[in-house]
Amino acid sequence: MFDYKLLAALATVVEQAGFERAAQRLGLSQSAVSQRIKLLEMRLGQPVLVRSTPPQPTALGQRLLNHVQQVRLLEGDLQQLVPTLDEEARTERLRVALNADSLATWWVEAASGFCDESGVLLDQLVEDQAVGLKRMRAGEVAACLCASARPVAGARALALGAMRYRALASPAFVARHLAGGIDGAALARVPAIVYGPDDRLQHRYLAALGVEGGFLHHLCPSSEGFVRMAEAGLGWGLIPELQVQRQLADGRLRDVLPGRCIDVPLYWHSWRMGGEHLERLTRHVERTARRWLVAPAAL
Amino acid sequence: MFDYKLLAALATVVEQAGFERAAQRLGLSQSAVSQRIKLLEMRLGQPVLVRSTPPQPTALGQRLLNHVQQVRLLEGDLQQLVPTLDEEARTERLRVALNADSLATWWVEAASGFCDESGVLLDQLVEDQAVGLKRMRAGEVAACLCASARPVAGARALALGAMRYRALASPAFVARHLAGGIDGAALARVPAIVYGPDDRLQHRYLAALGVEGGFLHHLCPSSEGFVRMAEAGLGWGLIPELQVQRQLADGRLRDVLPGRCIDVPLYWHSWRMGGEHLERLTRHVERTARRWLVAPAAL
Repeated sequence: MFDYKLLAALATVVEQAGFERAAQRLGLSQSAVSQRIKLLEMRLGQPVLVRSTPPQPTALGQRLLNHVQQVRLLEGDLQQLVPTLDEEARTERLRVALNADSLATWWVEAASGFCDESGVLLDQLVEDQAVGLKRMRAGEVAACLCASARPVAGARALALGAMRYRALASPAFVARHLAGGIDGAALARVPAIVYGPDDRLQHRYLAALGVEGGFLHHLCPSSEGFVRMAEAGLGWGLIPELQVQRQLADGRLRDVLPGRCIDVPLYWHSWRMGGEHLERLTRHVERTARRWLVAPAAL
Repeated sequence: MFDYKLLAALATVVEQAGFERAAQRLGLSQSAVSQRIKLLEMRLGQPVLVRSTPPQPTALGQRLLNHVQQVRLLEGDLQQLVPTLDEEARTERLRVALNADSLATWWVEAASGFCDESGVLLDQLVEDQAVGLKRMRAGEVAACLCASARPVAGARALALGAMRYRALASPAFVARHLAGGIDGAALARVPAIVYGPDDRLQHRYLAALGVEGGFLHHLCPSSEGFVRMAEAGLGWGLIPELQVQRQLADGRLRDVLPGRCIDVPLYWHSWRMGGEHLERLTRHVERTARRWLVAPAAL
């Protein structure tokens, strides 16, 4: 069999994004961790890590990480029967990548049901969907929650429903900037709020109103900050309905164009051979999604 | 003078994290952007960008970016007098790096006052403090809000006060996991919530209670998700007092050890020659911080 001491060193360096933290996590010296990576590379005759900051796996390194992740998931099933077999004797962890708006809203209910039952600890990563799926492919995460329907090899993708986004602003913002009537052209001339360079929701909303090209916008990569900026009248933006039920009820936020929304479908990607814990988490995710997400509709 | 078309291409590729998005932003073809970078490198006889994903500036590239950022800030002062001089004819933008918990809480009030007055749009980046200051040094941001007191060359650091963090959990979590009494050893045996690999607050809290080394924890890189996890009884963690006044008042969250907190000092780093807009933002930040932050105290 493979030497899992060496493979665990590789996985930990990538997961912890550095040799020093990997050493802390493994309870080894930094040079012992380095030694293990070098030994692995000598045996393979090829590098497994690019020594950048943070270290990146090579293509071969990624295939090994993928393997380690799957072995860990399989070990999870046996853990309760044979806890003493685990050399690291640590509580089990599951790593998942997910979109920021889910983590800020409905996701925690699914996580809570799962952790209560299983005692597993969660390593949650917030990633744009392209990166989340890259991490799946590289074996760095056991599952990924994102808007892409296409599963990576060895995984399946489960359609969960959609998050409904409404274009919202404060009444004061509308009164100040949009008193002359609201259409696509008017919206493009007043500041929008955009989560970050990969957030295309505001672009899509304006495109459906016939506006192509650039528009004024702030960047705000925080789900909570985004809502606060909208409440403070700094701009309009697409916000998950789930996140602002109170603000909609008490009138702090209003639709800029009532009746128009964007439904973003969400898919749960998980390894087929992921083991019992991953199956259980999947069941909790499905159940919670059914309660909170909507059936996707076209714009 | 320098050829600012070339320098703007460099800055945009780095800011947009890629050639394709830089081309969109500049309204050029991707090959035209590439061409400008190559021409810049030919004139300098040295590379300015490492063609990784995303592209990274070389040391020389960073010095040029720093220069571009400062020139843009200075242009900002003249903008109102001579708006037609700006070739890109776009609304002015200010890029700032800040910590996630500020963006989720008090920051928006400062931003709101500033944007109302100036009409400037904000590019906000959430960064760990080491990265935020690296971006200052590289000239990628005009200002940075973080816990480090030491200014980078050419900038000043203003002490704003501190965010007070309290170690909180749900009453159900305490009843279930900590009924036998709460001390450092007991806390280290039940799940904590940690924002990400760079969040050392829980480590510091436990260290002050005599616990060294590892402890059980979930990772949750979302300010709002962190609070939701604590409310759902998934773990205990250090949360800005500012963010959970409601939950503390209605009893959804409670101190695990009343009277113990961690005050994290915050500093506002900004370029000395940053121009009028940056001065004005600085005044708003100072004023808002005075209202929301506390005078730092030792643990």
